[in-house]
Parts: sequence; structure tokens; C-alpha cells
Amino acid sequence: MSVLVVGTVAFDAIETPYGKTDKIVGGAATYIGLASSYFINKINLVSVVGEDFPKQTINLFKKKNICTKGLQIKEAEKTFFWSGKYHEDMNIRDTLETQLNVLENFDPILPEEYKNSEYLMLGNLMPSVQKKVLNQMKKRPKLIVLDTMNFWMDHFLEELAEAIKEVDVLTINDEEAKQLSKEKSLIKAAKKILKMGPKFLIIKKGEHGALLLEKDKIFYAPALPLEDVIDPTGAGDTFAGGFISYIAKKDKIDFETMKKAVINGSVMASFCVQKFGTEKLIKVDKEKIEKRRKQFMELVKF
Amino acid sequence: MSVLVVGTVAFDAIETPYGKTDKIVGGAATYIGLASSYFINKINLVSVVGEDFPKQTINLFKKKNICTKGLQIKEAEKTFFWSGKYHEDMNIRDTLETQLNVLENFDPILPEEYKNSEYLMLGNLMPSVQKKVLNQMKKRPKLIVLDTMNFWMDHFLEELAEAIKEVDVLTINDEEAKQLSKEKSLIKAAKKILKMGPKFLIIKKGEHGALLLEKDKIFYAPALPLEDVIDPTGAGDTFAGGFISYIAKKDKIDFETMKKAVINGSVMASFCVQKFGTEKLIKVDKEKIEKRRKQFMELVKF
Repeated sequence: MSVLVVGTVAFDAIETPYGKTDKIVGGAATYIGLASSYFINKINLVSVVGEDFPKQTINLFKKKNICTKGLQIKEAEKTFFWSGKYHEDMNIRDTLETQLNVLENFDPILPEEYKNSEYLMLGNLMPSVQKKVLNQMKKRPKLIVLDTMNFWMDHFLEELAEAIKEVDVLTINDEEAKQLSKEKSLIKAAKKILKMGPKFLIIKKGEHGALLLEKDKIFYAPALPLEDVIDPTGAGDTFAGGFISYIAKKDKIDFETMKKAVINGSVMASFCVQKFGTEKLIKVDKEKIEKRRKQFMELVKF
Repeated sequence: MSVLVVGTVAFDAIETPYGKTDKIVGGAATYIGLASSYFINKINLVSVVGEDFPKQTINLFKKKNICTKGLQIKEAEKTFFWSGKYHEDMNIRDTLETQLNVLENFDPILPEEYKNSEYLMLGNLMPSVQKKVLNQMKKRPKLIVLDTMNFWMDHFLEELAEAIKEVDVLTINDEEAKQLSKEKSLIKAAKKILKMGPKFLIIKKGEHGALLLEKDKIFYAPALPLEDVIDPTGAGDTFAGGFISYIAKKDKIDFETMKKAVINGSVMASFCVQKFGTEKLIKVDKEKIEKRRKQFMELVKF
């Protein structure tokens, strides 16, 4: 099965209570693609970078079965850059700087061979760009997952609502679910959102795990309690990558498969946060993944 | 099996985003006793009230197999009173008023027949009072559970540390675990606390569930996602009651039994928060409890 991934490929500079990085490679599509690479071998990447983006990373993508034909490299332009600082409570972060650069006029163009991808992951991006990708598909993918964030709810709510209508799975965090639905209770929020288009909803709660909801069904996946969370950047994207690639691998769309996919997302996210950026994520292997999956099983078994 | 419960029996006046109560019956031992009453039929209550405390509630205790021989009723004195207001985010509350009244000079005296209780629940109280109860036991109970809170860590840390040394299970919330251990990471905090005396540690995370830890073992129980949480008062005490009474009923002390006891505590707490005070807790039955236990199983099964 093939998964089409659209999202940012970017530079980040990150500060957390555990340290600080220079410009390192980040971006939603980077994390989604890398997490997916452990489960499927056809990942179609759609994104844009500047000519400052390291060839080395593009080579790494290729080695990880991430096709870069849809990765536009803009000459004489610079890659999207985000810099942020996490508080002692790492659920809170301040954006220090955002340079849109190549992202300002990003027009996603799908190579012909991408247009039949069976699974579509619309990573966190401007809703109109997510929609443009969706519109280029030759036939409707088997499953469309959309990830988004409060910024788009604040400034592009109408476009976001339009995009959400078209998708099967929406992934947002708890605060965003409340914002989008204007409900204080998370369960009421979920019920309302499930009437806005998506058949499934995933509510990410960071260190407190994630909820998967379908009409009248609910599943809860904890986050693995870790001694040290070094850098939460990309955890949500990594989760999304682990989620969609698991479903694509199984090629089965039902609540039971989705539960396991949520656990797979949580497993991958638990690696992501243990080092800065993608450092740990690129170095795991099937054995480590299996071992951690078993830890998740043990954690909730009674 | 018999469970000895020490803690407050009190009046509360509560305001939450969902409403407001006049003086209603509350207190740690009240919630612990009522939650326990569904699982065991010998609950030995040690507490103190004033002559303003309703006979009706004392009769309810008796009807629920809560022995009140150890409940001191002080003539011409008034019952402990607490009044609080919860924020929109109900994890935060402000204390509006505290009247210690009878609690100021509370000297717990155990009736002879209490002194052989097999299980001991030291509900949230001044650590020296908890210790006084422990010291009156004829033989060491099979299991001693101590619940406490940040107030005692702020003002009576030394006494608390002394009491903690003697117990098997400590129950506190996540912030308190960090405060007690001076660690930022919850898992590091837990490891440190497990060296301070208790063999088991329960970290309560409110709407995010609870962790049970023993050296090298960890179990996570979610909270049931509820449409409406009306009033969180007493949820932690109810949890403790559901926990210790389950173990007392099974009369078995190992990690597997404790896991199920944590789920039982979560089940009972999920009822508690659905109405103000003890209103819902006193009205559940075995069928409703079983139904909810199954919901917990469904929630995490994958």
C-alpha cells in the first residue's frame, strides 16, 4: 500500500528544559514520513524546501522509502523555519520565530504516480493547501486523515471546516477539540465534531495519551510513562505517521484496526520525544518497536 | 475482612461551573466508607463530628455497614466545614473557607474491637493523627494505605515522612508526587518515593486516570471519559475506598490484585463526580458497578 503525505519539511530551533538545538531538520511531513517508514515501503512525500535544505536529509528520505519526487526544491529560496521554547511544563511552548519562506507560496503539485495513492495523510498545514492535494487525487483514497491545529481554527476556520468535511479521520488535541466544537466537555466536543464530517476522531492528550472515537465507540491509549521527555516537537506528527502507516500496512479500515493503529502511533511518538528532533526516530528498529508495543500492552492489562 | 477507615466526616459547601450547594455532608472518611460499603460489610469508622451533624447520615452509615462506634460526637461543638469553588478547569479550585471546629483537637480513639482490623485506610488528615491511629493497632494490619495532600507537605513534611515510612501504599496526585520527591519527571518521582517507605505508589491524575507503581512494575488505569463532571469533590477519597475495599474483599496482596483494585477505585470515582457530594455514590448498586467495570475493560482493550 502507498501513503501520500503532505506537510512541512522544515528547520526547527528548539529549546526545552533539557537543552537547546541549532537549526535541525523538522516539519510535520518529516516526522510523519520517518515514522511511516518502519511499516510501509511506499511513502509519497509532497512538500517544499529551499536550496538551503541538506541533500543528506533528502538522501535519508530516499533510503527510508520516502519518495521525494513531490518534494519541490526552490532555488534561491529558503526553507520554512520555526523556533520555539518549551516551558518547564512542556505542554506549553512559546514560538520565538517563524519564517514562512518557501511556504508562503506553496502550491502542492502531485506527480502523476502519486495520484492513485491508497492512503492520504494531510499533515498540519493551511487547510486550503490540504484541500488542493485532496482535489488532485484521481480516485478517493481508502482513508483520508487530516491533522490540524488551533492556528488554523483561529484564522481560517471556514476553510478548515470545508476540509474537515471531506476526511475520514481528524486528529487534534484536547484544547483544539473544545475550541472547534465550542464545548467544555471533551466527550460532548467529540460528539459534535463527529457530525462535522469525519467518521473517526482522535484526540491527542500529549503525556496523557490519546482517545479514539467513532459514533458510540471509544478507545483510550495511554502515553508510555517515560523517565525523561527531552523534546515533544513532532510527537503529534510522529503519532499520525505511526497511525496511518499501520492501517495502510494492514489495509483494513475498522475500529479494531484503528485501536492498534493508535497504539502504534503512541509507540512511535514515545521514541520521538526521547531525543531532540528526529534523532531517536531515525534510529529505532523493528525489534525496539515490538518491545515497546509489549510495554504498552503490559501497561493497561488487568 | 474488616477495614478501618480514619479521616474527616464533614460539611462541605461547593461551587462548580455546574452549580452550587449549601452545606452538604462530605469528608474523606465519608467518601471512603460509602465507596467501601459496596464491597465489604465491616467498615470501622474513626472520626469526629459536632452535635450539628445529622443523625440521618449516621443512620445511613449504619445501614451501609459502616460502624460508628469510633465516630466521636462532640457536644456543643461544630463539625469541620470546608467551602470551595472550582474553576472552569475543574482541576483547579480555591478554598473559600475552612472552619476546623471539632478537628482542631481531634484525638482518635479506637474502640477495642477496631484494633484487630485487617486493613487500614489512613484517609487524608494531619499525619500525626494518622500515626496515632496506626499506633493503636494490636497487630500490624495486612495492608496500610495512606492518602495525603500538598497541605501536609507544605507544613508538616517531617511528620508526613515519618508516617509514610510505616505504610504499604501511598496515594497522592501527580503534582504532589513531584513536590514530595523534588523531581520534575513523574517516573523519577515515583522511583524516589518508593524508596521512602511504601512498597506501592498510586499517582492520581484526575481526569487523566491513575498510575500504580511497584519497583520495576507499572500499571495505568484511565479515568472513564464522562460527558459531564459535575463535582470532583471526594473523587480521590472514593477512589481510595474502592481500592482498599476491593483488596480487602479479595484478601490478597499482589500487583495483579492491586491493578483490579485501582480499576475498582476508578469505577467508584466515576460515579462520585457525576453529582454533587455523595448524591450519586450512595445510590449505585452492584449491577451499575459491574456495567461500568465492563466499560473500563472495553475502553483500553486492543
